[in-house]
Amino acid sequence: MNTFGKKFTMTTFGESHGVALGCIVDGVPAGISIDEAFIQSELDRRKPGKSNLETKRKEDDKVSILSGVFEGKSTGTPIAMIIYNEDQKSKDYDSIKDLFRPAHADFTYWHKYGIRDYRGGGRSSARETAARVAAGAIAKLMLSAIGINIQSGIKAIGNIKGSIDDFEYAKTSPIHALDKNYEDKQIEAVTSARDEHDSIGGSVLTIATGVPIGLGQPMYYKLDAVLADAMMGINAAKGVEIGEGIKSATLKGSQNNDQISSLGFKTNKAGGILGGMSNGDTITVTTYFKPTPSIFQDQHTITKEGIETICSLKGRHDPCVAIRGSIVCEAMMALVLADMVLLNIGSKMEHIEKIYS
Amino acid sequence: MNTFGKKFTMTTFGESHGVALGCIVDGVPAGISIDEAFIQSELDRRKPGKSNLETKRKEDDKVSILSGVFEGKSTGTPIAMIIYNEDQKSKDYDSIKDLFRPAHADFTYWHKYGIRDYRGGGRSSARETAARVAAGAIAKLMLSAIGINIQSGIKAIGNIKGSIDDFEYAKTSPIHALDKNYEDKQIEAVTSARDEHDSIGGSVLTIATGVPIGLGQPMYYKLDAVLADAMMGINAAKGVEIGEGIKSATLKGSQNNDQISSLGFKTNKAGGILGGMSNGDTITVTTYFKPTPSIFQDQHTITKEGIETICSLKGRHDPCVAIRGSIVCEAMMALVLADMVLLNIGSKMEHIEKIYS
Amino acid sequence: MNTFGKKFTMTTFGESHGVALGCIVDGVPAGISIDEAFIQSELDRRKPGKSNLETKRKEDDKVSILSGVFEGKSTGTPIAMIIYNEDQKSKDYDSIKDLFRPAHADFTYWHKYGIRDYRGGGRSSARETAARVAAGAIAKLMLSAIGINIQSGIKAIGNIKGSIDDFEYAKTSPIHALDKNYEDKQIEAVTSARDEHDSIGGSVLTIATGVPIGLGQPMYYKLDAVLADAMMGINAAKGVEIGEGIKSATLKGSQNNDQISSLGFKTNKAGGILGGMSNGDTITVTTYFKPTPSIFQDQHTITKEGIETICSLKGRHDPCVAIRGSIVCEAMMALVLADMVLLNIGSKMEHIEKIYS
Amino acid sequence: MNTFGKKFTMTTFGESHGVALGCIVDGVPAGISIDEAFIQSELDRRKPGKSNLETKRKEDDKVSILSGVFEGKSTGTPIAMIIYNEDQKSKDYDSIKDLFRPAHADFTYWHKYGIRDYRGGGRSSARETAARVAAGAIAKLMLSAIGINIQSGIKAIGNIKGSIDDFEYAKTSPIHALDKNYEDKQIEAVTSARDEHDSIGGSVLTIATGVPIGLGQPMYYKLDAVLADAMMGINAAKGVEIGEGIKSATLKGSQNNDQISSLGFKTNKAGGILGGMSNGDTITVTTYFKPTPSIFQDQHTITKEGIETICSLKGRHDPCVAIRGSIVCEAMMALVLADMVLLNIGSKMEHIEKIYS
Repeated sequence: MNTFGKKFTMTTFGESHGVALGCIVDGVPAGISIDEAFIQSELDRRKPGKSNLETKRKEDDKVSILSGVFEGKSTGTPIAMIIYNEDQKSKDYDSIKDLFRPAHADFTYWHKYGIRDYRGGGRSSARETAARVAAGAIAKLMLSAIGINIQSGIKAIGNIKGSIDDFEYAKTSPIHALDKNYEDKQIEAVTSARDEHDSIGGSVLTIATGVPIGLGQPMYYKLDAVLADAMMGINAAKGVEIGEGIKSATLKGSQNNDQISSLGFKTNKAGGILGGMSNGDTITVTTYFKPTPSIFQDQHTITKEGIETICSLKGRHDPCVAIRGSIVCEAMMALVLADMVLLNIGSKMEHIEKIYS
Repeated sequence: MNTFGKKFTMTTFGESHGVALGCIVDGVPAGISIDEAFIQSELDRRKPGKSNLETKRKEDDKVSILSGVFEGKSTGTPIAMIIYNEDQKSKDYDSIKDLFRPAHADFTYWHKYGIRDYRGGGRSSARETAARVAAGAIAKLMLSAIGINIQSGIKAIGNIKGSIDDFEYAKTSPIHALDKNYEDKQIEAVTSARDEHDSIGGSVLTIATGVPIGLGQPMYYKLDAVLADAMMGINAAKGVEIGEGIKSATLKGSQNNDQISSLGFKTNKAGGILGGMSNGDTITVTTYFKPTPSIFQDQHTITKEGIETICSLKGRHDPCVAIRGSIVCEAMMALVLADMVLLNIGSKMEHIEKIYS
Repeated sequence: MNTFGKKFTMTTFGESHGVALGCIVDGVPAGISIDEAFIQSELDRRKPGKSNLETKRKEDDKVSILSGVFEGKSTGTPIAMIIYNEDQKSKDYDSIKDLFRPAHADFTYWHKYGIRDYRGGGRSSARETAARVAAGAIAKLMLSAIGINIQSGIKAIGNIKGSIDDFEYAKTSPIHALDKNYEDKQIEAVTSARDEHDSIGGSVLTIATGVPIGLGQPMYYKLDAVLADAMMGINAAKGVEIGEGIKSATLKGSQNNDQISSLGFKTNKAGGILGGMSNGDTITVTTYFKPTPSIFQDQHTITKEGIETICSLKGRHDPCVAIRGSIVCEAMMALVLADMVLLNIGSKMEHIEKIYS
Repeated sequence: MNTFGKKFTMTTFGESHGVALGCIVDGVPAGISIDEAFIQSELDRRKPGKSNLETKRKEDDKVSILSGVFEGKSTGTPIAMIIYNEDQKSKDYDSIKDLFRPAHADFTYWHKYGIRDYRGGGRSSARETAARVAAGAIAKLMLSAIGINIQSGIKAIGNIKGSIDDFEYAKTSPIHALDKNYEDKQIEAVTSARDEHDSIGGSVLTIATGVPIGLGQPMYYKLDAVLADAMMGINAAKGVEIGEGIKSATLKGSQNNDQISSLGFKTNKAGGILGGMSNGDTITVTTYFKPTPSIFQDQHTITKEGIETICSLKGRHDPCVAIRGSIVCEAMMALVLADMVLLNIGSKMEHIEKIYS
């Protein structure tokens, strides 16, 4: 089960320290201009080592398209993309091959499969998200053709939470901060955690504008439910909210209902979704990331044989996974919306008559 | 897209004021004792009109099994269940047939489909969740056979949040309150909202105990991601957390990592899930519900033609959907876990050799 | 796995001698006029007991729609339909409850599930096809709105094979014979088999006209492959051909290739499908049915315990399942094409721009 | 829709003259010894240019595993494999870029997508089947661990049909002939077609032995139906039979029913499948291939603009696609059975208790 989506789908493969990772993007409509430079630029936004707030693993993350594009256009056949792994320091992981790092997937992989590629977390490494970003870039190319635009940024690092959502600013911020007034404090929280050999959590706000009304299947493939799936499925995510989210649960209906005028919704507490379908307003999703599980302090754990031991990690890790996670949130939202755009067509006979007349 | 799950699946049908609603539960292993009284008792926990804190719509919610059970046992064929609608006051809805109730799905259904059964919200009515509870009861019967137990209760109503999680107490509380010390205040919050012709939000904690290690597919059908999908897909849900959830995003790794001893995890911040797979500890999920959108105060809205008008609702509604929502949360968690139990088998050759030798 | 299709789907339930059987049809576009009389008339074409060439089981097969239709139109929500069982003579089956009828599914059900509803074959009874015909009728209503028409008829009974394909004639023939010149001999073959307490095989030709070019997904959901799945999945089917089928395998390319003129294909050896996609010509599929496995002669078999015994059947059975099977072939082709019509939309950006502009 | 299977799945990518082709095999249980030499040997059996009865395109078809294998064992994560294209003579195809080759997918691709990679048939080239063979090899490794063995061979070329099914002989025959007594005549039929600048059809028998009872889902994922899908989906297939197949349709029940003794079925007319499930006997499937559509004689066709023209092909093609097709039939049967082996687990509670106790 390495496929995401129903009609516009991404199937990924690859381990952190294997030969390569990549994906097959299927269901891409024919006739989209596939801008390879754009895909690479998306990968560059996610790639590690851009600043000292990130892991020092050096990966160019150079992506190659293997199929599905002809003379610069999508052909309707599957688009395969591959990224070869380069800066693998597998030796770093010898010391952990027989123990379970706390808060990592080592324990569960081992018990589920009876075998695990322990090098860099294997399949469960956040490195897999490079494939998501590549696939998400294809989705963005399709979405932008019909006016849908996706953006993201860091809302909070630890307890330092911004109050302005400036997505343009986030594009230039080394931590993708949405609020420049809090950026310095947020950077300080990251560096201080890193200097203490610790890590820190954070949250990401992701939005989509220009979304037509009616995307989302209204019962078991609801837009909000699938976004929750998409975001919660990103490494280290532990919470997801749509619109006002948790705050809604503390309000009264008279405070929370978005009333409607002839110009549209007067407020957007709903985060752009009603009954599982987009209502034409901005889609807003907040994703909460736990602190990076890899910390450089001694921790209690056990070996595969169940013997208690101390886990002392070496290696190279982001002190705050939320930062690069924001790029992955965008990719996941793009994949969800591209899928919903396709699935929505055919919801009424009018569509069918329009296509087949 | 009215099917939930991949191997143990539920497909539901039915509108609030149609002839009947129900479901087909597929993928149920043969040989489970199907206790019809238990299924009915689960529906009774969810059914409306049990107290004056709930809608006064009177529905017996009597369920009939149509197939898939022979001499008291599941046969491996699909189990269809049906609940006929009884207390339909469709007249109540004449006044809203041409306008969009704020915070309801009226607006999006109309735009997506060009037609809507406006009576009682049609398909988007929470009445559909009766089918989920019936299907969830089948899932519970299967899960209990291997020692998995699911429980839920109300954590907060509005800003009144309990601090003790007493699931036994919740079973007897009219509002399924987890903390008896806060129950009165929580009831008061509901009645006060109701008396003000308003409604109020709330949150539900759902847990599963006895879960074997390794449930969940580790990439795109992760246990936490699918639980997020399941919970966010319940009517009025706006936020989902796994384990510490949002709080995790404010912590440092040294605070959030669950260290391990030879007796198991020392803490359970993770909510029983690592890398998308169950780790053997208690699964904990919190679901946040917005206030019931139907309130009995004048609200601004528009008609289908886009003309501004006032929405003045009549009818019968729960002032706090989270309360009965807690029963639905249990059902959804049961469905997710039943699916994961089946999907996990075959993850290693050892399983296959055990079955086919 | 009781669901057929990917976007326009049918999920069926029910056993031969259970309470009821039925289906949920999902993915039906909103705005189709749902003609209940037409659906019933399709069921009437399939229902047993219309002549002495068929089983004498008397079933009205009266279908009720439970959901998904409002004021005569589909609403985009799932359409559930139910048919209650009436003329159940379950006693007839007491003698077979512990043995395996040759050429029936008794043996395999028992081994797979460890339990079986032996009454009338339980789930594996051809009675389940009533649900397919009901769902197929909905598909036909959608298809006819865009000019697609499906017909079928009997090509051969035993070795008596017609040479003319007159689908209008088949509609009035008690055995759905396509060639009136062979009808009498074909009827005689059926009655003679019946009188000898035996049964006989036959084949069905099913066609679709008015099919737009491009239906079918070109790799793993090919139109021809899915039609093969659909037809081979009907009870008693043992062979499927597209176009010239088996005969093609004896020809040279120069004989088999359909050359093209500005007016279209000069021949239709391909049966209207190239590369898994419809080419605009008539879709032709031949389905081969084995003789009814239930015969009234002594046969060798074993009991559940593996003891050799004699199987002497009583009951009521069609001597030739191909006859009523032809109605099921139409339903299955309609379901496949309805699914393909929906899946094809979005294959190119032009579609997407047309819908979302 | 480039994925085949439900639990053990293969997703393929690649065009005939693109950079590479390959696949992701997902759902592979952990702990299988992945013998790379075996996978390559399977590809070698299919690769072109082994004799003058095949296309002269020279492809080494060297496969590389990119993921999912660690220290020689499957890990439960997706296994990606890649084959780079080498001997591309894309120039050969310039003359056909604006016209539709008769009996090819050119016409339908163009109409469906509005764009096509015309070089060597693009995605619809039989070259894609290399990926199927690689994936099928993984399936075979899993199946052989539980005693399931798959074999195939040529039954007929044109009208020259063998009467003995010697699968050992087929392994050494350049045309995979099952009957050595007919091999010479069959070879002659191929060479004679080739020398006439023509092509010829043929049929393939594929069998599986050692199949446990109960594989196959009994309603809409029947073993026979999915095999029909799998075989009909191979390039150039036009007919599929299970067991006696078409001949069954000419028989009486007393002739066709497989009676049962305490030693098993007395005959195997059913081809090892009853009610969509394996009955423990040998699975037998016959697949009928049309003649290669590419012939070197002038044919009438039209251009993309609809202008009549003559199609005069150059290039390198197999005169009889059935021959190499037999290797693909094996791969497809292996993929179907591997999927069914996994899907069958969990059909009864006994399985579940065995795994989770």
